[in-house]
Amino acid sequence: MPIVNAYVAPSAAEPLVPAKIERRDVGPRDVLIEIKYAGICHSDIHTVRGEWGEQQYPLAPGHEIVGIVAETGSAVTRHQVGDRVGVGCMVNSCRECVHCLTGEEQYCLKGNVPTYGGVDRDGTITQGGYSTHVVVDEDFVLRVPESLDFAAAAPLLCAGITTYSPLKRWNAGPGRKVAVVGLGGLGHMAVQIAHALGAEVTVLSQSLSKKDDGVRLGADHYYATSDPATFEQLAGSFDLIVNTVSAGLDISAYLMLLSVDGTMVNVGAPAEPLPVNAFALITGRRSFAGSMIGGIRETQEMLDFCAEHGIAPETELIGADQINDAYERVLASQVRYRFVIDTATLA
Amino acid sequence: MPIVNAYVAPSAAEPLVPAKIERRDVGPRDVLIEIKYAGICHSDIHTVRGEWGEQQYPLAPGHEIVGIVAETGSAVTRHQVGDRVGVGCMVNSCRECVHCLTGEEQYCLKGNVPTYGGVDRDGTITQGGYSTHVVVDEDFVLRVPESLDFAAAAPLLCAGITTYSPLKRWNAGPGRKVAVVGLGGLGHMAVQIAHALGAEVTVLSQSLSKKDDGVRLGADHYYATSDPATFEQLAGSFDLIVNTVSAGLDISAYLMLLSVDGTMVNVGAPAEPLPVNAFALITGRRSFAGSMIGGIRETQEMLDFCAEHGIAPETELIGADQINDAYERVLASQVRYRFVIDTATLA
Repeated sequence: MPIVNAYVAPSAAEPLVPAKIERRDVGPRDVLIEIKYAGICHSDIHTVRGEWGEQQYPLAPGHEIVGIVAETGSAVTRHQVGDRVGVGCMVNSCRECVHCLTGEEQYCLKGNVPTYGGVDRDGTITQGGYSTHVVVDEDFVLRVPESLDFAAAAPLLCAGITTYSPLKRWNAGPGRKVAVVGLGGLGHMAVQIAHALGAEVTVLSQSLSKKDDGVRLGADHYYATSDPATFEQLAGSFDLIVNTVSAGLDISAYLMLLSVDGTMVNVGAPAEPLPVNAFALITGRRSFAGSMIGGIRETQEMLDFCAEHGIAPETELIGADQINDAYERVLASQVRYRFVIDTATLA
Repeated sequence: MPIVNAYVAPSAAEPLVPAKIERRDVGPRDVLIEIKYAGICHSDIHTVRGEWGEQQYPLAPGHEIVGIVAETGSAVTRHQVGDRVGVGCMVNSCRECVHCLTGEEQYCLKGNVPTYGGVDRDGTITQGGYSTHVVVDEDFVLRVPESLDFAAAAPLLCAGITTYSPLKRWNAGPGRKVAVVGLGGLGHMAVQIAHALGAEVTVLSQSLSKKDDGVRLGADHYYATSDPATFEQLAGSFDLIVNTVSAGLDISAYLMLLSVDGTMVNVGAPAEPLPVNAFALITGRRSFAGSMIGGIRETQEMLDFCAEHGIAPETELIGADQINDAYERVLASQVRYRFVIDTATLA
């Protein structure tokens, strides 16, 4: 079993440290990827700190992975040595249930295998992308189009698909008014994608401090939610609201910004339940929904869409020794808009 | 202006009493209806007691009205003297907004005019169906098919359409699994309609005390929600859950009973916000939605559907002097399943 360099959390309470981890031998349907870049997602922090359930340690997080195929198993047909590839939030699923068969492995009835902190098919705990190499079943490896900047492509594997999927499902497009709540890692992707899909895009952010960025990324309108007038002015306006904010919001106030039959989709998951006023739903046949990443097929579609439309996250490249500082800056909303680890610094 | 007999709430705190109320003169597009039966809806109680906002008193409630056309205005074309007709929760709307133009007057952007306690186009406060006569614009008067029992038809105008509309919108039908939460006035209509639409119907009720009724009305399955095993056994089961219970429920527990892409629709409106766990939405792309009555066109469709399928509420006919007792029994869930006032007792 290959031993590779990684950055791991030794426990829920300690900072991440350099360590060696094992990868499995390359099986017939596996791809060995030499990781080039790995994005830092807010959920990495929740997970390694045990906020989303107990974990086994040491744990290497990271589910926004891009790299180069270094070796392929004997039965691999989809990828070749030298290909630019990516791995997102899942590395396996049951392949048999109705959702796997329709390409929505994220909703696998037996539970998909998350890229880190999950139980792999061999019983080991999966280890993520803060590492130099990873071995993944070829069906869960994506092709990264040549025209995408390689480092910037990494966050597409989570932040990109997490926003692309609900925008497509709830028909963001020409003639549709879409609001994006929060201009962070997810929000700044949602704005770009919704704009490229042809929707009229509004950013709802706590303040106007990132307004220039929002407009540059494709927002047609930008409002501060700290101003109560925003909620009066925009009442009944939107067909779709994508909420990228994980902190608790006054959901009912946002629901009233939806037009009749409008939907507000949460892509983040606050730990505390969100109070929803049933009147806000009933009086406009509104829906409050949730969406979780996207299937492998749709993730490939998203990568191709971003390449075609020149969409990319705005990133700050860091070395591995900056990961712990980066976590603090993510928690303080001080990143514009995604940290990406240069895994050459792990070698 | 005609003076007619009615039963009214003199204030939010007093029982209803007999009284005289004014009806407007029959205008060119108006229909004068001699009311035969009026259903008692839970929302009558909320409204006259001021629980859904302040009211002007005296107020005659009642928005489940059937009667015979006694007079028609000079321009009326849809109804004739002697016709069996009905009036539901609305008596007017703007007629110009996108929702009025698509036949969904309940979501009129200027606000529809409720059958009682609303501001009518002449500035007066509308008075409802606990009365011998009512004057209504012909466009808001429904035809009651001959084959429907007349007294039993009254509750269709609210309880019927309130459940029919979401069942249709969220595609209750063959191959779809629909759960109905609560077997009361609304629930016992939802079961019959969902069954007639071809769905596989499950009742989720606090106890099994009404199981025989549920099965007789068309339920394929019946579970007690007081039994925690119900929530384990039915996890991920339903395409659609129609929640007819106005009391606060553990919504997140019910959301976990939905399959991927399933929707839970509230048709009642608890006063307190409902805590919703975002994980329950996200992990199955589930939706929590609301629906409010239905449009006039759809209400007519529902009446015709009920006539065609032999669907009717189970009712207990009462005299006007029993209204206050009936209110207490509604609040105590001691009615199977709808009180209907014989307005001959008001004469």
